[in-house]
Amino acid sequence: MRITVPGTAPTVLVREPGPRIAETVHGLIDQGAVVTVLTADASPTLLDLAARRLVVIDGDADPAAYDLVLRDPLSANDARTTTSPGGSVVLVGGGPGDLGLLTVAGLDALRGADVVVTDRLVPLGALDEAPEHAEVVHVGKIPRGAFTSQEAINHLIITHARAGKRVVRFKGGDSFVFGRGGEEWAACVEAGVPVQVIPGVSSAVAVPALAGIPVTHRSLTQGFVVVTGHVAPGDPRGTVDWEWLGRSGLTLVVLMGVAALPQIAAALVHGGMDPKTPAACIEDGGMPSMRSVTATVTTIADAADQAGIHPPAVTVIGDVVTALKESP
Amino acid sequence: MRITVPGTAPTVLVREPGPRIAETVHGLIDQGAVVTVLTADASPTLLDLAARRLVVIDGDADPAAYDLVLRDPLSANDARTTTSPGGSVVLVGGGPGDLGLLTVAGLDALRGADVVVTDRLVPLGALDEAPEHAEVVHVGKIPRGAFTSQEAINHLIITHARAGKRVVRFKGGDSFVFGRGGEEWAACVEAGVPVQVIPGVSSAVAVPALAGIPVTHRSLTQGFVVVTGHVAPGDPRGTVDWEWLGRSGLTLVVLMGVAALPQIAAALVHGGMDPKTPAACIEDGGMPSMRSVTATVTTIADAADQAGIHPPAVTVIGDVVTALKESP
Repeated sequence: MRITVPGTAPTVLVREPGPRIAETVHGLIDQGAVVTVLTADASPTLLDLAARRLVVIDGDADPAAYDLVLRDPLSANDARTTTSPGGSVVLVGGGPGDLGLLTVAGLDALRGADVVVTDRLVPLGALDEAPEHAEVVHVGKIPRGAFTSQEAINHLIITHARAGKRVVRFKGGDSFVFGRGGEEWAACVEAGVPVQVIPGVSSAVAVPALAGIPVTHRSLTQGFVVVTGHVAPGDPRGTVDWEWLGRSGLTLVVLMGVAALPQIAAALVHGGMDPKTPAACIEDGGMPSMRSVTATVTTIADAADQAGIHPPAVTVIGDVVTALKESP
Repeated sequence: MRITVPGTAPTVLVREPGPRIAETVHGLIDQGAVVTVLTADASPTLLDLAARRLVVIDGDADPAAYDLVLRDPLSANDARTTTSPGGSVVLVGGGPGDLGLLTVAGLDALRGADVVVTDRLVPLGALDEAPEHAEVVHVGKIPRGAFTSQEAINHLIITHARAGKRVVRFKGGDSFVFGRGGEEWAACVEAGVPVQVIPGVSSAVAVPALAGIPVTHRSLTQGFVVVTGHVAPGDPRGTVDWEWLGRSGLTLVVLMGVAALPQIAAALVHGGMDPKTPAACIEDGGMPSMRSVTATVTTIADAADQAGIHPPAVTVIGDVVTALKESP
């Protein structure tokens, strides 16, 4: 339950702290409140919050001295809730495809949505969590197939929000990692529509992990690079220095790079990458249909082709690919 | 509810598909089953699953022709559940600090844990979700303070798992992004303990997002680099080519880089980065105490110092920093 604190920086006393006390305290502090908790028996969570100076714990606090006194868990009588009459847009990153990798806040947003504007590569089961009355609009882009233009998507979410609807823009992975979420954010701001982002589990990191590949590993790498392979090496639209990446020592994660894999591998090796560097190509990461192929940077394009790897796929190149053994 | 399918690739008929049908189907396919759904009135989710050839929908299927027939939602009579008597380890990435950014699967793992081995920078409220009987062990590392060595942590999780406990190793962000999760995974495999990873929302992407900064943005960048600033430019242990990063055109995300910020900025500009490139330093991302400072690559170190920015902090450098306006 969300409470809205009246005025600026009032003092709030929370009594009878329950198991969701951290959430209550965070919500209050977010709104500028100074929070004291009345209890003689502080939980470890409460002690942690106090150690970080986010709350004061006081077993003898006098309720009369505070602007607002709340019970926690909140009851309807304590909470002063307000519902904005206007519509809004929430950009929700859905993770790589498995419902379990959706965030708690993302799931909550879907459950409160009036309209869900969804891509194709999302955890589909999550759409069933939207309320009965919610309208679900599919705007998924199928490579080389029919699609809704970005301008049309922007128009759609803004129109629904202006009609007072709570709009969830639902995408696979994270909205701000090649998800064009920034453009949707900017369009909402331009239109005067309140917009918020709920970060998601990015496929760039999670898909390798689900295939047993950590993007960083002690002694092997001090970082990683995430690039789109949509624009191949040699394409005049490209700004990525593939040859330098070949000698950077960083783990390389290529999204949308299946078609350009032969040119990418050639540029990396030409730039100085050891031709024996391990590489993996992972299709449908996070979905039941997930499968992966492991080879070297010089053989991965052929290996992926022979295995019939199709988009969506994530390619990882670097020593981390073979760093871990399978779980027993 | 999790069902275990007997034998390899049996044919399964699911009748009376309910709202969680996608989850049921995913669970069955994971185990190699060939799934048919018996219904004359397919939901949009089911039609999507069928379009992806994950299930066949058949309104006239004959239950006698299948190895296994299930109702969905599953009832206890239909499900053949097995519980492993042995212990296990799950590496759960907790996201940047807000309970809402924990994944649904991560929350489920905590709720089923016997032992939780936790870091300091996790969504603390999530610890209250562990069962009453669960033992919570704090092994958080405070910079320059007391800490538990990685070897001691590995020993702890393996010992509890060998005693038959369901162990959750709980970290902030993602376990495989500078989280040393790979080492814990390797230690479990070495010890013969079953280990699994649940990817989390990485601070490298989410903390910038929460400060209104997309790590990629159309026309501005074709990728991003995530590096640790723990090892400063010039340090002989470092393998990161900071000067090249200065002219790479990629968004740069530096984790653990507050102390080395002056040297990092100098190396980037020396390498060719425009001295006016925007930069932001975000402290306590995802927590109520979050705050950020925006400046340029040449002034960010001083600006962060004057604002008293302390670890944990994420630094973002690139044109994306000023790409978006605030939400109205």
